[in-house]
Amino acid sequence: MSTTLQRIAAVIESRKPANGGDPAQSYVARLFSKGDDAILKKIGEEATETVMAAKDARVDGDTSKVLYECADLWFHTLILLAQFDLTPQQVLDELARREGLSGLEEKANRKLIEREKNGD
Amino acid sequence: MSTTLQRIAAVIESRKPANGGDPAQSYVARLFSKGDDAILKKIGEEATETVMAAKDARVDGDTSKVLYECADLWFHTLILLAQFDLTPQQVLDELARREGLSGLEEKANRKLIEREKNGD
Amino acid sequence: MSTTLQRIAAVIESRKPANGGDPAQSYVARLFSKGDDAILKKIGEEATETVMAAKDARVDGDTSKVLYECADLWFHTLILLAQFDLTPQQVLDELARREGLSGLEEKANRKLIEREKNGD
Amino acid sequence: MSTTLQRIAAVIESRKPANGGDPAQSYVARLFSKGDDAILKKIGEEATETVMAAKDARVDGDTSKVLYECADLWFHTLILLAQFDLTPQQVLDELARREGLSGLEEKANRKLIEREKNGD
Repeated sequence: MSTTLQRIAAVIESRKPANGGDPAQSYVARLFSKGDDAILKKIGEEATETVMAAKDARVDGDTSKVLYECADLWFHTLILLAQFDLTPQQVLDELARREGLSGLEEKANRKLIEREKNGD
Repeated sequence: MSTTLQRIAAVIESRKPANGGDPAQSYVARLFSKGDDAILKKIGEEATETVMAAKDARVDGDTSKVLYECADLWFHTLILLAQFDLTPQQVLDELARREGLSGLEEKANRKLIEREKNGD
Repeated sequence: MSTTLQRIAAVIESRKPANGGDPAQSYVARLFSKGDDAILKKIGEEATETVMAAKDARVDGDTSKVLYECADLWFHTLILLAQFDLTPQQVLDELARREGLSGLEEKANRKLIEREKNGD
Repeated sequence: MSTTLQRIAAVIESRKPANGGDPAQSYVARLFSKGDDAILKKIGEEATETVMAAKDARVDGDTSKVLYECADLWFHTLILLAQFDLTPQQVLDELARREGLSGLEEKANRKLIEREKNGD
């Protein structure tokens, strides 16, 4: 797996209260101490900010905010995964399972074609 | 970088119309042909589905849907990155830049502490 | 209550399967027959489309799409309320309860001031 | 129009900086002073919280949080409308235009049927 994802996942794991994470010192420990809803709210927030950043990038040509917001979104996804004792490796495995994207594309494509027929 | 992310990013890149991607055959090519808004709508949708999956997992104990929705969310983030000629490596670099999460945590933590003071 | 909200709420109510709503004929009946998740996905989708429409309006000056997406968002909120046997009147009552917005503003304002202190 | 919506819209309008709204005193004035993105982020946040509240309501049977989050979502939609010099009456007019929901339902229903064919 990506060394970066692995390292960040390890740091996040170490921030769990059960692993000694201190909510007074760590943002991640604090999110863990607040629980599911605090983490899920961040997923919704970061997705919205990603959408806004992409819209802005088409106006000012600056794509760095898209990059930054995607990093934020992935970061909070990693926290969510840890909250459910899941790992980024499992997400990568799931993505790999859809090898060549062929299966995914086939199903998703069929749906999109039908939607377009209906002027969606 | 993760071989999986690299491989998926390469497949996504090959689906761009300019690279011969065929909207009639490929879901990703179709999203590219529809443009920014179609991709951004998917980011919003997949984030919402991730939130719902996490809520369900607390009821039925099945975390596999969380994993699946996170994979969907990452997958569509990869398409968004490609749409803006960005790469997952750049996202990983941005995450690595926040090394040890320390800088990020410090800033984010200060904010959270203040919010909690206000009963948020 | 607004006659329009009342009338739409009544139509939505009539689309419930228990009230004879036919999923083959009615979009709302179909959403009801699919259940909570289908309705909640629409809330997420319409919120994302509202955000995109607002961003577009700043570029092309056309605010009609903002109006249209807000209507879509309210419409699906009305379906969600019906799904939980709640009414738009109850939402209006809740809004009225926050009379003059004063209580709401006081609490929310205090939070925002603190966030700004932290450069959020 | 609903007296409540009308009254809240009037209060919101009075909070615009141009109308003497004071960001130091008013949450709404503060959102206006921060601009589009601050308001749009709230739309995304409140939509996510509405989804979470609905999920929770199925577990604990308490629908009051759904009501509360819908009120929050509508409230911030009213602020967004004002930001674009639109009114809730225009949203109600748009909803009324879709009289009996028939036109809306016809189009939306056709789409949903196709999606279901594809196992969406």
